[in-house]
Amino acid sequence: MHTVIVDRRELHELARAIIAAAGTPDDMANDVAEGLVEANLCGHDSHGVMRLPGYVSFSQTKAEASRIFNRVRPAARPELMPESRLGLAIRRVDGGWGWGQPAARLATRTVIAQALKTGVATVTISHCNHVGRLGEYTAMIAEAGLIGFATCNAGPAVAPFNGRERLFGTNPFSFAVPRTVGVRGDGPRPILVDFATSGVAEGKLQVAQAKGLPVGDGLLIDKDGQPTSDPAAFYDGGALLPMGLHKGYGVSVMADLLGGGLSGMGFACTPRFGEGNLAGNGFLITAYNISDFVNVSEYVSKVNELYARVRSSQPARGVEAVLLPGDPEWISRELRLREGIPIPEVTWDAISKTAAELHVPLPV
Amino acid sequence: MHTVIVDRRELHELARAIIAAAGTPDDMANDVAEGLVEANLCGHDSHGVMRLPGYVSFSQTKAEASRIFNRVRPAARPELMPESRLGLAIRRVDGGWGWGQPAARLATRTVIAQALKTGVATVTISHCNHVGRLGEYTAMIAEAGLIGFATCNAGPAVAPFNGRERLFGTNPFSFAVPRTVGVRGDGPRPILVDFATSGVAEGKLQVAQAKGLPVGDGLLIDKDGQPTSDPAAFYDGGALLPMGLHKGYGVSVMADLLGGGLSGMGFACTPRFGEGNLAGNGFLITAYNISDFVNVSEYVSKVNELYARVRSSQPARGVEAVLLPGDPEWISRELRLREGIPIPEVTWDAISKTAAELHVPLPV
Repeated sequence: MHTVIVDRRELHELARAIIAAAGTPDDMANDVAEGLVEANLCGHDSHGVMRLPGYVSFSQTKAEASRIFNRVRPAARPELMPESRLGLAIRRVDGGWGWGQPAARLATRTVIAQALKTGVATVTISHCNHVGRLGEYTAMIAEAGLIGFATCNAGPAVAPFNGRERLFGTNPFSFAVPRTVGVRGDGPRPILVDFATSGVAEGKLQVAQAKGLPVGDGLLIDKDGQPTSDPAAFYDGGALLPMGLHKGYGVSVMADLLGGGLSGMGFACTPRFGEGNLAGNGFLITAYNISDFVNVSEYVSKVNELYARVRSSQPARGVEAVLLPGDPEWISRELRLREGIPIPEVTWDAISKTAAELHVPLPV
Repeated sequence: MHTVIVDRRELHELARAIIAAAGTPDDMANDVAEGLVEANLCGHDSHGVMRLPGYVSFSQTKAEASRIFNRVRPAARPELMPESRLGLAIRRVDGGWGWGQPAARLATRTVIAQALKTGVATVTISHCNHVGRLGEYTAMIAEAGLIGFATCNAGPAVAPFNGRERLFGTNPFSFAVPRTVGVRGDGPRPILVDFATSGVAEGKLQVAQAKGLPVGDGLLIDKDGQPTSDPAAFYDGGALLPMGLHKGYGVSVMADLLGGGLSGMGFACTPRFGEGNLAGNGFLITAYNISDFVNVSEYVSKVNELYARVRSSQPARGVEAVLLPGDPEWISRELRLREGIPIPEVTWDAISKTAAELHVPLPV
């Protein structure tokens, strides 16, 4: 497959200009672009700039073509709701059906500030479109020196354990802890857990299908409920399966009940606002302020001891090294910062077409 | 295998009397007995009364025999630490190396009361022995009308993804939401997620080994890092594998960093107090007060709609019905309340021996 190598600054500028040209104020277009390019840098191309053509189409009123994302209001600005009661450790953001990224950033900044006051804090977002990669937000919390946990629901794509109908989203789950005291600066990157609770993310099926490759066993059933490794079966009425059998199913249900439930947007298979919550993510983020629990220097020093112990442990046969969650992302990030971001030609062509339609120039 | 069928009230009284005879005040002996018998009722025999002989031996000073649980102080009472700052949504319990169950119950009652004030709240426990089945505590939160999340770490038994050394505990993870508004009363039982982040719980290896049965593929490696299905390989220097590959590994790491870390007890592979944290569970519990986020009647009604939708969905081939997390536990509980709790004869003999040593009479 042919790929184009793009410098991350050029890619950011292109993404920003496209989102801005779709009617988004500059600061928010910047948030969206940063989220997409960070996903590419971290190796999660399924959440990167390949989303741009879809994002733009969702932001246009003639978007009936997409059943899933059908109502991005590109100029809508997320709002922090007034505190309903003094002393609460929770806050709520109304995303106003604008872009999910600026809403999630507002929620993340808010949960950090609140947890510094109350030790633990939670923020939910209602009327929220696709927030992108959850790890972006939990890592922000960890890079501010706190522990972050986030989850959200999404439109139905995954069968329950022992079932065959699409009733749950790929419902991601993320968690991050700092490896430095206070704001990270130049210190080591956080330990970062970030995964879809389906065995495979839907974006990765798209990638496999584009390449004509099968996916692994145990990830997918076809419309008759039969196991298959053909990604096309998903788009023909099949369903993804949860990761880790009934255990991953449990985490997926939790994401729906916490993210969809406490945001007020409802559950994937019983949405509240008609098609409302199918259109985005019911999002919940929690931060824990380490120093209200334990001595934060000791905590961080223990985390680094754990990190070193795991990294220096004996790998399984045929494996080079044992990594911590997040390491693959940070390794990819270093490499792609240095060498540029590879974009498959077919993706690049689609982005170029979108750019041309909006009269946005491509990088030279 | 021969089994003895015991009524749950008789089993409770026997467990209570044994723990009391080991030097525990009655109210706390009652907490321990209730935790064990509830685990049996819910079908989790690995966390039930089969633990009694071990528990008693851990509570005796000549307990060098057990590397893992070596310091239960049977009369020690857990204490709620004074609030370190006004307005905090977190509290801390010192378990004093007494039984884990009364400590976890104190933490659970505290987190419920605190979340009713602050919307979200978290409680950790330090110096805490085995708390038993996490689902007991998250279900208590849900039965009080809130959403509960709990996790804890444990002594090393599980290899990291791609590794082969025992560096993490079986680190359970639990989550529960109510299906009634406010205190449950006679309403339906909560949706309850509760699992070990290893592919299989260590207690279930013990059960398989006792029966001479292999375990499934992908759960276990031997001391050379080779995949095996022989439970004996674990006790000969092997290791459990995480559930769901790198995803379950991520949840296991999270349990260590949250439970072991924020309790101050340290991590499984880098414990803080010498053998200290190997002896128990670094425990963290969080409660979310639904009504501070959304209308609680609507929330519960949506949860029940989701429940009905999933239960009535098409099952996979060869499966009778699609269940929600927690259903298997509640189904077992109904059955065993009615028909008694089956105890394998070998387990019953061990319990009888412990009872005899402590001059506790067996049920007639």
